[in-house]
Amino acid sequence: MTWETIAAQKRQALRASIPEEWVIPLDILPPDTQLDVTNFLKQSGWFNKRELEITSTPAPQLLVNIATGSWTSEEVTRAFCKAAAAAHQLTNCLSEILFDKAIARARELDEYHRTTGRTKGPFHGLPISIKDNFNIIGHDSTVGFTSLVNDPATYNSTLIDLLLDAGAVLYVKTNVPTAMMIAESVNNVFGRTVNPRNRNLTSGGSSGGESALIAFGASRLGVGTDIGRFPNFQTRSGLAGQEAVNSVNGPMASTLSEIILWAKTVVDQQPWIRDPKCLPIPWRTVTPKRTLKIAVLWNDGIVTPTPPVARALKETVAKLQQAGHGIVDWKPTGHDKLLSILGRMFVADGGKSVANLLEPTGEPFRPEMKAYAEASELGVHAMWQLQLERNGVCKSYLDQWNESGIDAILCPTTPYSGVENGKFGYVGYTGVFNVLDYPAVSFPCGVYADKVIDGAYADDEALSAVDAQIRNDCE
Amino acid sequence: MTWETIAAQKRQALRASIPEEWVIPLDILPPDTQLDVTNFLKQSGWFNKRELEITSTPAPQLLVNIATGSWTSEEVTRAFCKAAAAAHQLTNCLSEILFDKAIARARELDEYHRTTGRTKGPFHGLPISIKDNFNIIGHDSTVGFTSLVNDPATYNSTLIDLLLDAGAVLYVKTNVPTAMMIAESVNNVFGRTVNPRNRNLTSGGSSGGESALIAFGASRLGVGTDIGRFPNFQTRSGLAGQEAVNSVNGPMASTLSEIILWAKTVVDQQPWIRDPKCLPIPWRTVTPKRTLKIAVLWNDGIVTPTPPVARALKETVAKLQQAGHGIVDWKPTGHDKLLSILGRMFVADGGKSVANLLEPTGEPFRPEMKAYAEASELGVHAMWQLQLERNGVCKSYLDQWNESGIDAILCPTTPYSGVENGKFGYVGYTGVFNVLDYPAVSFPCGVYADKVIDGAYADDEALSAVDAQIRNDCE
Repeated sequence: MTWETIAAQKRQALRASIPEEWVIPLDILPPDTQLDVTNFLKQSGWFNKRELEITSTPAPQLLVNIATGSWTSEEVTRAFCKAAAAAHQLTNCLSEILFDKAIARARELDEYHRTTGRTKGPFHGLPISIKDNFNIIGHDSTVGFTSLVNDPATYNSTLIDLLLDAGAVLYVKTNVPTAMMIAESVNNVFGRTVNPRNRNLTSGGSSGGESALIAFGASRLGVGTDIGRFPNFQTRSGLAGQEAVNSVNGPMASTLSEIILWAKTVVDQQPWIRDPKCLPIPWRTVTPKRTLKIAVLWNDGIVTPTPPVARALKETVAKLQQAGHGIVDWKPTGHDKLLSILGRMFVADGGKSVANLLEPTGEPFRPEMKAYAEASELGVHAMWQLQLERNGVCKSYLDQWNESGIDAILCPTTPYSGVENGKFGYVGYTGVFNVLDYPAVSFPCGVYADKVIDGAYADDEALSAVDAQIRNDCE
Repeated sequence: MTWETIAAQKRQALRASIPEEWVIPLDILPPDTQLDVTNFLKQSGWFNKRELEITSTPAPQLLVNIATGSWTSEEVTRAFCKAAAAAHQLTNCLSEILFDKAIARARELDEYHRTTGRTKGPFHGLPISIKDNFNIIGHDSTVGFTSLVNDPATYNSTLIDLLLDAGAVLYVKTNVPTAMMIAESVNNVFGRTVNPRNRNLTSGGSSGGESALIAFGASRLGVGTDIGRFPNFQTRSGLAGQEAVNSVNGPMASTLSEIILWAKTVVDQQPWIRDPKCLPIPWRTVTPKRTLKIAVLWNDGIVTPTPPVARALKETVAKLQQAGHGIVDWKPTGHDKLLSILGRMFVADGGKSVANLLEPTGEPFRPEMKAYAEASELGVHAMWQLQLERNGVCKSYLDQWNESGIDAILCPTTPYSGVENGKFGYVGYTGVFNVLDYPAVSFPCGVYADKVIDGAYADDEALSAVDAQIRNDCE
């Protein structure tokens, strides 16, 4: 079988696993020309009041409603399954569909609750969506490789066991880029996930299936990953064994309360008992200072933020100052070195890990993976020198942080407010923190791009070739 | 200059830095045939009552005596300098001598205390000995390579800055094996450090200069290192950039109170602010359970503990049982794999790091470093597979630990009670915990080897070639 046939069959099987009742009727299916589909849940008329109430309720309240018997886990799960089915049909965001198992599990949990009056754990009955690289017994984790299609997991990732022990319901797995190493969620198995706010734009990556699902309103709480402290054991990687840049998983959700719920619940489960890479650090409630000293990274000196992002940063800083926080400018010392190190570390195996996953089915390197296709393998001695180089830059960055006496750095997540599919050209605003291994959170700031207000770039020169390319793409 | 000349000059300069008054008079110098020199301080008559009182006082009390003005830091420092000078002349345990600077610093601290009535920090006035690989401005850190002689550090290691900020007095650096990668402290610069309890035996390694100094009674608190959580930044390594097996430094002392003093003081200094590899985990006081469940590793299945060690283990277990602790047997699952991984990881660079440090002076590989001389370099892809292999074994070990519900593993530190110089053949009892990255502490159990009581090995077969060799050496 060719890789194209394998991919086509997998996509077809995935689509076929959506039950007839949750296939969007043709008369309400938004046309491909409708770019924003985020209002589909509320405006299509296809979801009843209860379903809309469920999908718009933050996870902590969902848990309360299930625990008190106001709602059953089954009806909550059904609502999220139906919404996820819609999300997939409109954004291509899923990689595995577990609706049957999810509903069966929800029923079991409801039965347990009915007969005992108790809950199974802190996530009792809550549907949680899962990024494709986590292994769930009986399901593929292709991470975008055709060679990994029809190779269902025979064990659960540590985090999956932990979530199940906590009472969670797993209902979907979400799409990723090939090897999770492209900034857009596109691969040769499932194709491309698009952004539900504007389907001409990318939903990003590598957790772009997850972001599309949540932005669409079909998940309250999902698990994504980044190259960075939660249990990652027995997940699938495109660069297995790569440790010089740490991987991390973390929650993705629409509200801070849901992020905290996830983090505290996972830490309270003592993941260090199951994952040898997790350290035994119990959850500590921290009382934040009343006013913080925040450093603003206006520009990393390599790629200028696009005008809407520059404005969003300005407006956010004004709000922080109004709230009494101290603001200082952050000098991006060492960002060029950090990004050079990041690039060299990912391809240090000469692209062999990726090539070995492409080879069995003759699948070609995607064009976005050019750096892997063209890489030369380092020897271990050269790798050790690279690690030393990284340690030196990390130390300088830490010193700069401490000398500044700051509490946080505020910076753009990307230079873009949105990126046309296929044009995500720069990950440097997050990449430096991958190498530094600093905790980070990305949040919506309530500012939206507006061609009239934002106008064009200031009349300065491009900072680099990639900056020039992005200015050209975005103007 | 040949490497032999460089080494001879360095040794001579080191010896010359001992002031005339602290050169042991010939009439009281123990002959080479006197194997045990641990009674030298008390029985030579060369140390006065106050000096003996000082060197036998645990560090916490020393700090109190200095802080209350009963003793000056200067007299305390002089006593330890004199004792260290004696230790070096009898065991060859030092690599750098800082007596002048130490006394000058002690005077400054005393002056500060006299004028302000305050102390500079939690280690105010306390002499602390330092393993050679820590950088101290103006002093060599040769880690046993002639190419690093006369290459004084231009910066302090992070831990050194931290100790100085805490008010410590640094008076000596202690000898290590070449690249710190031999289990005996022997190298081509300083030669061999011997065990003050029996100079025919090794003081071990890589922190063997430190262990000899402390066992002799010339340091209360020293800093050693092993391949595992205290700030290690900017120390010197023979395998710089090697990260697959974590390095750690830690306290070496004669009493538990001194170990706790060191650990709490260092953690309270927030080392994570200075070392990007330290995590922000504050000191937490833990109330131990009244009774523990302890697993005993009687034998790792590769090398049988020598008869005195087997007996020491038995006697210790009996004491633990008497104290009410639960004892179970520990099965050494995966030890062979862990040791194989350890061996492959250390030489993964094909020995290039060591060869590059030998090359400038034409210094030969020491015979104990044969594995480095003969190694082939791995590519990064093979290294990633090795890291995956390690992660798998670490996970199995963690699972076995948790399934057993134990609080600790009790095992021999080495199969030996003592090792003749040049015959240290097995590090597997500690090496597995290096790969596992588990915290560990080595402690004296109050049992001494006794040919009559211990007798010979049981009449079983050797477990391996190295077991056979050790049985032959030790019988």
